[in-house]
Order: sequence, then structure tokens, then C-alpha cells
Amino acid sequence: MPATNISLPVNDAVASAHSAFSEYKKTSPAQKVLFLQAIAAEITAAGPAIIPVTQKESNLPLPRLEGELIRTTKQINLFADLLKEGSWVRAVIDVKENPATDIRQMQVPFGVVAVFGASNFPFAFSVAGGDTISALAAGCPVVHKAHPAHPETAAMIAACIHRAAEKTGMPPAVFTTVEGFEAGMQLVNHPLVSAVAFTGSFRGGKALYDAAVKREKPIPVYAEMGSVNPVFILPHALQQNGYDIASKLVASNLLGTGQFCTNPGIVVMPPLHDAKSFLDTSAQIIGSSKGGVMLTSGIHEAYKTGVQKFGEHKGVTVKATGAIEEEKATPHLFVTTADEFLNDEHLQEEVFGPSSLFVETDDKAALYNIASALHGQLTATIWGTEEDLKEYADLITILEDKAGRLLINGVPTGVEVTAAMVHGGPYPATTDSRTTSVGTDAIYRFTRPVCYQNFPQFLLPDALKDENPLGIVRKSLGH
Amino acid sequence: MPATNISLPVNDAVASAHSAFSEYKKTSPAQKVLFLQAIAAEITAAGPAIIPVTQKESNLPLPRLEGELIRTTKQINLFADLLKEGSWVRAVIDVKENPATDIRQMQVPFGVVAVFGASNFPFAFSVAGGDTISALAAGCPVVHKAHPAHPETAAMIAACIHRAAEKTGMPPAVFTTVEGFEAGMQLVNHPLVSAVAFTGSFRGGKALYDAAVKREKPIPVYAEMGSVNPVFILPHALQQNGYDIASKLVASNLLGTGQFCTNPGIVVMPPLHDAKSFLDTSAQIIGSSKGGVMLTSGIHEAYKTGVQKFGEHKGVTVKATGAIEEEKATPHLFVTTADEFLNDEHLQEEVFGPSSLFVETDDKAALYNIASALHGQLTATIWGTEEDLKEYADLITILEDKAGRLLINGVPTGVEVTAAMVHGGPYPATTDSRTTSVGTDAIYRFTRPVCYQNFPQFLLPDALKDENPLGIVRKSLGH
Repeated sequence: MPATNISLPVNDAVASAHSAFSEYKKTSPAQKVLFLQAIAAEITAAGPAIIPVTQKESNLPLPRLEGELIRTTKQINLFADLLKEGSWVRAVIDVKENPATDIRQMQVPFGVVAVFGASNFPFAFSVAGGDTISALAAGCPVVHKAHPAHPETAAMIAACIHRAAEKTGMPPAVFTTVEGFEAGMQLVNHPLVSAVAFTGSFRGGKALYDAAVKREKPIPVYAEMGSVNPVFILPHALQQNGYDIASKLVASNLLGTGQFCTNPGIVVMPPLHDAKSFLDTSAQIIGSSKGGVMLTSGIHEAYKTGVQKFGEHKGVTVKATGAIEEEKATPHLFVTTADEFLNDEHLQEEVFGPSSLFVETDDKAALYNIASALHGQLTATIWGTEEDLKEYADLITILEDKAGRLLINGVPTGVEVTAAMVHGGPYPATTDSRTTSVGTDAIYRFTRPVCYQNFPQFLLPDALKDENPLGIVRKSLGH
Repeated sequence: MPATNISLPVNDAVASAHSAFSEYKKTSPAQKVLFLQAIAAEITAAGPAIIPVTQKESNLPLPRLEGELIRTTKQINLFADLLKEGSWVRAVIDVKENPATDIRQMQVPFGVVAVFGASNFPFAFSVAGGDTISALAAGCPVVHKAHPAHPETAAMIAACIHRAAEKTGMPPAVFTTVEGFEAGMQLVNHPLVSAVAFTGSFRGGKALYDAAVKREKPIPVYAEMGSVNPVFILPHALQQNGYDIASKLVASNLLGTGQFCTNPGIVVMPPLHDAKSFLDTSAQIIGSSKGGVMLTSGIHEAYKTGVQKFGEHKGVTVKATGAIEEEKATPHLFVTTADEFLNDEHLQEEVFGPSSLFVETDDKAALYNIASALHGQLTATIWGTEEDLKEYADLITILEDKAGRLLINGVPTGVEVTAAMVHGGPYPATTDSRTTSVGTDAIYRFTRPVCYQNFPQFLLPDALKDENPLGIVRKSLGH
């Protein structure tokens, strides 16, 4: 069955994961809850040993890594709670007597999922991160392609998952790993892989998408490819809180050396005298800022190339730069006009790191034109007073079609892990705007609905039995 | 913005639909309810004038068309009811005080949707069929590409929608039509089209999918491309009810001259002496059956080619044929062995019309091998006694991964329009197994989640306001 050009390690990993699927999908929600909780417990226990290794591999500061590890285990337990509560399967029961009808529906797992670890969240979006955990929660075995930026961390976390599987009696191949770029592409092309999750660059995500849709049997790819997370500052807010907004926005832009998918990379300013002071304040903060060591030298090189391109752009001015230090990314603040921005789509490209582009507009129409010209985004933010927001109400209507998450008077960094979160958005922010990669709804990336018609009770999945042995909330029709 | 190789009618249709989108998405659920109900009322009123025209265009018998028209208006009213009830938007509200969090989520419409009418359901899957109505219910304008098999019907139903839009104050371009193959491909390639719905052949659906994923901005394609809807007969059921099962299955196969996506095209039989009598009964019914005039001469030609291919296959026997009449499709019953079936994937191909292939198995293992080798299906059916179903329990586990709908002791034709229905399934039955094209969940093909963070009350969509002005069921967290 597997294509012949797929290497043995990938074939072995996928074949064993596929065998594990039929066993794993039969485990009860309670058994999966124990498995997920055991993963969280193993990671918490191993944390003190893992964090120093990750610190070396990622250059991320210790407090950040400690926080991220806690966030990761919290996220795992959140999915355990989701399975415990049980209504996520969206059970619908339609039983009628005349004409006799017995139709029931619920979500079932897809099959083997390939997960690609991200560089910028070695815990939360990597081996036992949101993609892996939501797939495991859905009932799908995971073959994980570790990010080369943190191989030792990946191995240590993988060992936690394996210990948890062993302790809770799960098939060992419910989680396996492969390594290397080639293995990653083979994974996407493997006929027994049924979905792909990825967080990273546009180039990487698009390559996986292109491979997946060309397969004999195409499969879904959930690639979160980042965005520039535009921020619109409206006139009264700027007048009243210019300094405050500048401080918060720049801090968000510099956070973690700018290495967040939700980093605010574009700031659209209104045509006001006050914009100058807002801009000057921002420039001052950037000017006195220090950069940091980036996740990898490759990311640092890409950042340098990105800021150089903007710096050499004839329509763009370098307004401020932070400290220039060996091996560290230098923060950059660029400024351009609405016309320049609208005339060159490249100015919408993400420069992953502590860089932002401020766009000066001449009037409301220009601001709307910019909003309309935006590509798909993970987030879009508006700073405005009540007066502003009423005057610019159509801006929300426009941005609703552009982003997965809209914010008022806040910063886009800091993504809450909740059932209400959407960390996703129209292409090219992601390859599937119907989904989220953060929050419990992430589970639906790995399930599909199945309808059971005229089934005797003993054959129905527990979630659909009349007696409701799982005690879950269900939708009943036809009574 | 639109690509230059797109013809004026398509450009005009999409551009006006796109303009209508910003207006239409702002209409309240109550306004959309009135619009949908008006469409149903207009169609009901025009029914007596439309049905004779459709009868001529489709060759479908009058009672069937009368029934289909009622089904279509019922379906429209079902979506009106869905909007009235309102919980379909999946509103989630997460408000916490410490740390201050206000995150809310709901489904929002995609944008302009291209809908391709089907030939075999000139009402229920065509101009005002499930695809159009679920897109309109979601808040998406529709550009409809009429099926060339029933152009006058299409024009008459389109006029009903236009009258309904006028009477209820909707933007006229909320529904527009284009014609012709070229226009269809241009529609899929138009940058302002955001999703595609199609019901028809694998070739047609796959061509749309391939075009959509190659766009600069890929868009989802929901193509329902039919399937062979395998039926497994288990030993005791066959012994006890062979005659009954044969009658029901053959009737389902011949229904509407076999022109249903859920037509049972493959029947897998156990290794029993009784299988012979089951087969003979089926052959006898087919042998004394009459065919019918098919929807189009093209479909009839394709059917003749299909049965000829099976007839000439060295591993396949023609067991029975129905009446041979000029201009009518002749029913066919073919028989093959498990080995032949497993060795030639072509034997899984759909022959659209009153043809079926019975597969004789040697043992349980062969039956499981056939189930495992099946491509994606809309439906899979098992006939079995309680004893059978317990003995063959793993068959359900296998078929769950193969089909969108599983049936026990029933026939797959006759798709109930209910919230519990899944009319979909793994590729190649559809291009997106996560969705259904029948039932109210069809609406989610045209929506995406958006998250509203830290919004003042007056800016929130009604569905997410604290006071819940729409009075809908919502999920509240964090309290």
C-alpha cells in the first residue's frame, strides 16, 4: 500500500500508527482521559530536567520556558476535561415513530495524523503541543516530525508520551516520531496518513499543502503560517492615549524577540498631527530597545534579509532601530505611506522578528482601502474610543472577512487557550480558515461526522446509545 | 482584481454578488428567515407551472417530481427554522474577571459561494437545492451555474428566488446565475469566489477541486461525487430473510432508474449455499424488470459504456439483464469473486444507473479484505441478525472509516433531511469528508469561526451580546 519511494523509518512509523488506530479508536473516553493526564504528569515531572536542555537549544529565556511548559500541561489537561465532559462529539439523535426513523450522528477520528513541530514554541506547539494533543484527544494516532531546532527536547518529551502510553495501556504506536526534511515530505505523501498539522513559515506550510492536495487521495492540511496581524489606530484613541498605545504595541512587537505568529507587524495610523507624536514615541521606545538571540541562526538570517529588504525599499523609511549587537536581532521600526503600501503587496509580507511597519494614511478612505487590501490574518486589532468605533464601524465588517480573531484596544500576542479562541484565519494565515489550532475546537481538525442509521442499541457507539452511558449532553430531535 | 481571462458575465455576476455580500451579511436572522420562507412559497406557487417543464427536461416521472418539489420547499423551511432557533452559530462566550478576559466566538459567512446544479435532482440539488439554500442561510450570496440538462427549470426556479429577494428586501445580487462549462471553470477561478459546492460525477468534481487548490488563494470545494454504496449480507440474515433482502435491495437499485448517489452498486455475499438462492432471487427480479429513460442521453451513453465494460471483464459474469428497450437503460446484475474484486480497482467504479455487482466471498477474511479495500463511500450497509452483527462486529469498525453513513438492515436510497444526517464521506465519495451536503449541518460548509476579543457590547454581533437579544442557546464559560 505505501508508495515505494517512502523510506523505511517513515513506512514503519506510519504502518505501526495505522495498526494502533483500530485499537486506539476503541479505547473509551475515560481511558483517553487517563492517557492525556499521564502525559501532562510525565512532562511536569520531567520539566526540571527538560527545561535547561530546551534553553540551550532554543535560546529562549528560562522564565518563558517555565511558563510555556505549564501552559502546555494545562492545555493537555484542558483536552482531558473536554473528553471527560464528552459533548464535543456533537451527538445528534433523531428517532421518529412515523415514518420509522432512527438516525444518529457523532464525530469520529480520521486516522493517522502527521504533526510538524514548530520552532518558536518548543513545548506548546511541538511534540506534546496543541496539534499532537488535539489529535490524540480526537482518537487519532500521531506521527510527529520533530523540529530540527530542538531535537533533544523533542526526544525527552516524546519519551514522556511513551511512558504515559505504557502506564495507561495505550498501544505504543499511538505516538511515534520521524526526523528530517525528507521524512516530513514522505509523511505527507504516505497513503495511510489522513491529515497534517503544521505551524511555521508560509513556504513550509504551502509546500505541505501542495503535496497533500496532489495525492491520489487528497488529505486536509492545517498549516498555521503566521501573519502580520495589522493594528488600526483610530483618531480619538490616538489623541487621548497615544503614549499608552505606543508602549503597549511596541512591547507586544518586541516580546520574545518578536518570534510570535501574532506579533503586530503592521500599524495603520490616521491622518493626524497626533500621529507624529505617537510615531515618535514608538520610535523612541524602539530606539532604546535591545534585541535578543533568535531561535535559530536560520531564523536570524531570514530576519536580517527581511529588514534589509524593507530598508532598501524606496517607499519605506527606517524610523528607528534598537541596539545592534553581535548574534542578536536588532529591532526595527519602518514607516511607509498608504499609497506605497497599496502599490506593493510585498510590504504585507511577514518579517518574523522584532520589526514593524507603520503605515500613514491620508484619510478614512485610505484606511479602509488598506483594510480591504489585506491578505488573510490570524488577528486584526483596532484601537479606538467609543466615538471612533462608531464612526469606523465598517472597519469591523471588513476585518471580519480578513482575520480569525478581532481585538479592540488590546495586543494580539498572548493567545488564550479556551473554547472561545480562534487561532486561525483566512489564507495565507492558514490553509484552512474553518479551524483553529489553539483552544478545544482544535480537535475538530481530526474528526469527521458519521451517521448511524437503524442501528440496534448494542451496536451503537456509547455516545449514541439510548441509555446515554457516558452521561453526555446530546441533541435529540423528533421526540 | 478578477483575473483577466474571466468572461464578462461571470465577472459581473461575481462582482455584484460580492457587493451584495457586505449588505446581506448585515441582514438579521429574522430577515433571512423571511427570505428563505418566501423562496419556498414562490416555488410552491410556481410548482404547477414548473413541474411539466421539468418533466420534459429530465424524463423523470411526475409523482417523483411532485415529491421532490415538496422535499425541496420543506428543506428550505428547515433552514429557515434553523436560523429562527439560532444556536447553529455556535456562540461561545468566555468572560473572566481575573485575569480580565472577554473572548467570544461565533460562525460567520465565508463570502460568495459558487453552486453547481446536479442533473439527477432538478429541484432538491439544483437551483434552490440544499447547496444554494445552506449557503444563503449561512449569509453567503450564491452564484449558481445551472445544469445544462434542465435550463428552463433552472430559469423558473431562479425567478422564484429573485421574486423572494425582491419581496423581502434582499440585495438582488444575493443570487445570480451563469451558464455553460467555461463559465463554471471561470467561477471556480474567480478571486472573489470563496467556496464551491457541487454534486455530480467524480470527473467533474475532481476538476473543480484541482482548479480550486491551484488558485493563488485556494478555496474549499465541497464536491459530492457519488459512490457504489457497498452492501454486506451476513450469513444468518441471508438464510432467514434472503428473499426479503433481495427484493428490497434490487428495488433500491432500480429506483429512479438507478440514478441516485446512494444507489447500492456493490453487494458482498457470504460463502453459503443460501447465497445461491439469494442471487437467483435477485437475478429473477432483475430479469423481469424494465428500465427507464435516463436523465440525459449523455448519462445513458455513459451507462451503456459502463455496463459494457463490466460485461466484457473476464472476471465478471452477467447474471441477469432487464428488458431491452429503445432509449431506455437496461438493468444489469453482474457477479464476480472476491479475488477478482480485490485484484482490479476498476470494479469499484460507479456505473451510474440500474446496475449492480454482486461479489461472492469464500470466508469471513475475504469479506473483511473487501471492506478494507473499499474506497471512500457515501454509505455502507450491513444486513445481519443479532448473531451476525456480533460475530462481524469488526466490520463496523472498518466501514466507519470508509463511509459517511452506516446502515443496518435497510437500503441506502432515501436520504432523510435531518440534523442527524451525513450525506458525505471519505474521498472519492466527496472532496471533504468533514461535511455533509444534506441536513442542516450543510450550513457549516460556508462558515468559519471568528473570535471577538475585548469588544464593547455595542460592537458585538447580536449573537454574542450579554443581553442575548436573539434569545439563542449559547455556551458560556468562565463564570
